[in-house]
Amino acid sequence: MMHPHADHVPREVTSEQQAVEQRLVERVVASFDACGDPRLKEVMTSLVRHLHSFIREVQLTEPEWDAAIEFLTRAGHITDDVRQEFILLSDTLGASMQTINVNNQAYGDATDATVFGPFFVEDSPAIENGDDLAFGASGEPCWVEGTVTDTEGNPLAGARIEVWEADEDGRYDVQYDAGKRAARAHLFTDVNGAYRFWGLTPTPYPIPDDGPVGEMLAVVGRSPLRAAHLHFMVSADHHRKLVTHIFPEGDSILWDDTVFGVKESLIKRFESQPAGTPTPDGREIEGTWSRVRFDIVLASAAA
Amino acid sequence: MMHPHADHVPREVTSEQQAVEQRLVERVVASFDACGDPRLKEVMTSLVRHLHSFIREVQLTEPEWDAAIEFLTRAGHITDDVRQEFILLSDTLGASMQTINVNNQAYGDATDATVFGPFFVEDSPAIENGDDLAFGASGEPCWVEGTVTDTEGNPLAGARIEVWEADEDGRYDVQYDAGKRAARAHLFTDVNGAYRFWGLTPTPYPIPDDGPVGEMLAVVGRSPLRAAHLHFMVSADHHRKLVTHIFPEGDSILWDDTVFGVKESLIKRFESQPAGTPTPDGREIEGTWSRVRFDIVLASAAA
Repeated sequence: MMHPHADHVPREVTSEQQAVEQRLVERVVASFDACGDPRLKEVMTSLVRHLHSFIREVQLTEPEWDAAIEFLTRAGHITDDVRQEFILLSDTLGASMQTINVNNQAYGDATDATVFGPFFVEDSPAIENGDDLAFGASGEPCWVEGTVTDTEGNPLAGARIEVWEADEDGRYDVQYDAGKRAARAHLFTDVNGAYRFWGLTPTPYPIPDDGPVGEMLAVVGRSPLRAAHLHFMVSADHHRKLVTHIFPEGDSILWDDTVFGVKESLIKRFESQPAGTPTPDGREIEGTWSRVRFDIVLASAAA
Repeated sequence: MMHPHADHVPREVTSEQQAVEQRLVERVVASFDACGDPRLKEVMTSLVRHLHSFIREVQLTEPEWDAAIEFLTRAGHITDDVRQEFILLSDTLGASMQTINVNNQAYGDATDATVFGPFFVEDSPAIENGDDLAFGASGEPCWVEGTVTDTEGNPLAGARIEVWEADEDGRYDVQYDAGKRAARAHLFTDVNGAYRFWGLTPTPYPIPDDGPVGEMLAVVGRSPLRAAHLHFMVSADHHRKLVTHIFPEGDSILWDDTVFGVKESLIKRFESQPAGTPTPDGREIEGTWSRVRFDIVLASAAA
């Protein structure tokens, strides 16, 4: 992200210099005095204070500032309808997950949320319970089933479940063909609040790393790999929309997930089934397959 | 920048929740452990800590996070070779000026620096001492003269001075025609370290406010106006490059400059000359003109 500057020498900060720097912070904060929206004013002035604290703490050099502007510019230029470098940046700095954290406390008994990621699209295919969402995407079949309930255990019929995942090569449909829809779908829970579908057993994959965020990860010695996962977005009337994933137990990358998305409660047992094991719906499968159960609890919208 | 959220209710943060949030910060910081460049590691981990402190302090909501991603995306898409929205963002949050501040302390006796701004271009026309840099840009003529010396008062011959400014309508050449060069030039100090040229008397103008930064300023009730100024970038062998402006004394916008660029030491007396006043070089001018003296002191590169 920043260029190396082996010649950066921390300076002594005199009290006069501290006063100059602090006066600037106060002038910038005061420039928001006329803001009529108290929440916006709170967010912007806090942003200003923390941004200035960062600059002062590291004594950001002008070449580093140039590099940051250039980094953001390149992130903007690589971003389009299907590539979102700013989400990747937020994700890899843990900012997305921290935003999830600070908003998730109030929903104590509900299923934990995790990062949204950059690969959701609005127009996923509709499928029925029991259908296959692969639509030609490669990978081991995985039977996914569960229920959607409220925090008191009442089933939620007609809850909308969006599911999306990468194929076994670690790519989402939008990455190989912007118009194609595969390994993603939406379905609705039945009258008992239950759902079931065929997906793919998730595998680890790198986030798109051919842009500035990938360069940043490489320069600082971080892996671009995400722990294997299957995305869910679940919504029901009068309930809080849940954005989450489930992660296969035993994946070696779980705690090195490059976007810090893993929570203990979201690690699920994906049971491997030897070739020839009968399937829940009588489907004929030639090779191995897996199955997982994910029971989802939605908080009420008032929470 | 963020959308108003009148329904944002600060929550009580339990110690358990604080621990969840703090653990995430430490995991993100630890992800930089393998970074081989100590300075880069310092910058990135400080950035992470301050970014997370901001998110936790304001309890950033998910719609606000969405709005921030969308803001950055639009800033990226409006940015091109002659429009730099990320510099405008940095400028209007005071981040550019604070970066100048933290790097400027060591150059005690040298002329103060201020923000670079987004309107410098590499290929300004060359002029000789005494020439006019307007090249057809409209505005009141202004005679600018001074010297470039080191911090011991020794004249610096052959120092390169880049000068650029807006026309009387508040627009830079690149804003009305990407290929045009007007109201900008470079020249060199003579054997005595002196320089002189005809420019334009600076007038206040708005920063480009038809993009996301302009919307942010409007929503928070800030003016997009910059205090009137004339840009300088001065370089000489073995001396630190200086990026600065001078500001006309008496401008009503001085302390409301939207990029916080004004320093007391950079406010100069631009003396108004009634029509008919003889000019320093015998040039015939029909109307009024002004004159200003700006003596520039460069720090040594070792400072």
